[in-house]
Amino acid sequence: MTEVSVRPVVSSPSAKRSQLIDVDVHERADLQALVPYLEPMWRKYITDFGWQPERVLPYSQYAAGGLDRLDAKLPDGRPGGSDYDLLRRQLLDEHDIDYAVLTGWLDASALQPGWAEFKTALMSAYNDWQIADWLSRDDRLLGSVHVNAHDPIGAAREIDRIGSHPKMVQAILYIADKAFGDPYYHPIYEAIARNNLALGFHHSENAPTALGFHRYFVEWHTLVPQVFMSELVSLIFNGVFDKHPELKVFMIEGGFTYVPHLMSRADQQYKELRSEVPWVKRMPSDIIRQQVRFATQPTEEMSLTQFMRLIDWCESDELFCFSTDYPHWDFDSPTEALPQGLSEDLQRKIFVENAQNGYAKMPALRTAGQ
Amino acid sequence: MTEVSVRPVVSSPSAKRSQLIDVDVHERADLQALVPYLEPMWRKYITDFGWQPERVLPYSQYAAGGLDRLDAKLPDGRPGGSDYDLLRRQLLDEHDIDYAVLTGWLDASALQPGWAEFKTALMSAYNDWQIADWLSRDDRLLGSVHVNAHDPIGAAREIDRIGSHPKMVQAILYIADKAFGDPYYHPIYEAIARNNLALGFHHSENAPTALGFHRYFVEWHTLVPQVFMSELVSLIFNGVFDKHPELKVFMIEGGFTYVPHLMSRADQQYKELRSEVPWVKRMPSDIIRQQVRFATQPTEEMSLTQFMRLIDWCESDELFCFSTDYPHWDFDSPTEALPQGLSEDLQRKIFVENAQNGYAKMPALRTAGQ
Repeated sequence: MTEVSVRPVVSSPSAKRSQLIDVDVHERADLQALVPYLEPMWRKYITDFGWQPERVLPYSQYAAGGLDRLDAKLPDGRPGGSDYDLLRRQLLDEHDIDYAVLTGWLDASALQPGWAEFKTALMSAYNDWQIADWLSRDDRLLGSVHVNAHDPIGAAREIDRIGSHPKMVQAILYIADKAFGDPYYHPIYEAIARNNLALGFHHSENAPTALGFHRYFVEWHTLVPQVFMSELVSLIFNGVFDKHPELKVFMIEGGFTYVPHLMSRADQQYKELRSEVPWVKRMPSDIIRQQVRFATQPTEEMSLTQFMRLIDWCESDELFCFSTDYPHWDFDSPTEALPQGLSEDLQRKIFVENAQNGYAKMPALRTAGQ
Repeated sequence: MTEVSVRPVVSSPSAKRSQLIDVDVHERADLQALVPYLEPMWRKYITDFGWQPERVLPYSQYAAGGLDRLDAKLPDGRPGGSDYDLLRRQLLDEHDIDYAVLTGWLDASALQPGWAEFKTALMSAYNDWQIADWLSRDDRLLGSVHVNAHDPIGAAREIDRIGSHPKMVQAILYIADKAFGDPYYHPIYEAIARNNLALGFHHSENAPTALGFHRYFVEWHTLVPQVFMSELVSLIFNGVFDKHPELKVFMIEGGFTYVPHLMSRADQQYKELRSEVPWVKRMPSDIIRQQVRFATQPTEEMSLTQFMRLIDWCESDELFCFSTDYPHWDFDSPTEALPQGLSEDLQRKIFVENAQNGYAKMPALRTAGQ
């Protein structure tokens, strides 16, 4: 690896962002709210048969509000992200956000295999509800097409049905226990590519670690980045990036300190073993630099020097995109999460440009100072 | 995190090590060779019932000699590590090694749960064979006590039986799919502590990734570090290091570029969630710096600057111990694996002192130039 001097650091406390894209914001549906969007035959799965989202995690989130920021829960007991007005006040207005990419909730606890057609229909209902209840209410909200990955043809059909909606910028897969580079899932990526969308991967409570679900929540939560590494390795070595060289992939809610290790390790293995996967034509680190973006949340406290060295090790300052993960308990504030003293140039990349360059359908921003 | 200036780099090509400890060398037993060391009732499991080591990996190693360096295989077809004379020539003499810690083979493909008492006896046979066929033949060879972790009381009994042998420096657990921080396994660590041994963790072909066994060997091999991260997280948050503050743990054959990420991520989670695990009294990165060592193989190519920054990020130059992994295909040469230009001081730490300080029973070395 060679060193590149990425950017001079201008350690000016007055360097201030004027624009902000948040690539991970969770709106939340009550399951009952989706019933009207379903065909009658699928409604019965909820109303009569009592289907509930499947949740594998053997603990709940160890925080005062459980999954949510305590102040993001509604007085009537509804979970964070249920109410547009509160989300607008606490997130969009409070932090002066230009665009927020909605990343949903239902998939996070749902979508194990089983009842594939019902779940494909449920995702369609979710997307229609998302458009009606969220995207149509605020110009700043952008959407994610939710799909049932266990029905790849149905997922592709859903992407073709709704992916051309002007506010849909990506299709999103919640990571559970499947390696999504398998050709079984490739119809999904073909549909994403022909609809000019990005592909988002988001963590879920159904994602295991290499040794399953450990005894404590803190163990599981420490090891969250593993499934992100696994998905990237699966996509890279199964040729998804080679089949779709224009595809951009967002890794959401796994942090980013694992990226240099993954690049270094994958490159080394590629050098030694690439004849096993001759369809992979580029070094994994090059593929990542060219086609992958990482949402920053949850950030780890680090000094400015360490953050810059991490970027330097990645040999790119275009990989990281800011995200809050509102309304969850480990919310990252745009003013506090990243080290102080980032140069204006780097701030503009992390807070705005890297997301803009990753989402082909991201609308133009209001101009600075407007 | 704060930066520490770890060491000035003396980039002298003449800086040359004079001593070398290799902490990962694989001797290999033919299963039949163990039969004479078993009680008659256990012999039948092999001779009559046909037990074979269980192997989960759905591929073999993608290399010209399979698992082994091609030149380390014997002319009669036996695998690498089967013959002392060849190992002596190719490793101990060729690379002028002072001490080599034998790390075994049988566990790597064996020891799923099932037939616990037989496997506990088999490990005793393996240890007796190791002493007779290897440790007694060369002063430079040091040993590892093999145990059946699925029988923790039997494992502790074996450590008490053979752990006081003067050449046994550690007890070793091969990583498969169990998180070894579980209190179920703690009798093993108590026996290790009272016998003044280190605890080694070694990779195996039965170790999964967070998404199981992927479609290609290169995927699985890229993701090998995951189970090392998982084991450390399991040991840390289940209080093994707090119960045994003098215990030293060696992580063997997982590389080391994951260490800064793991430290950073685990510290962050500890800050946020430590009230869930109140018995953990130190920051995970402090525990790692004080009690964990990492064998270097398989190294990833990197520049001297990058290597030094990685050490800098770890805030310690005492974590890494050189290893070759002889006779396997991705063998690391002592003269080529690490970046050129390491200072003499750092070379001495990585090639000698860090292992010496980790293995309480490591014998004194011949003095330099002797």
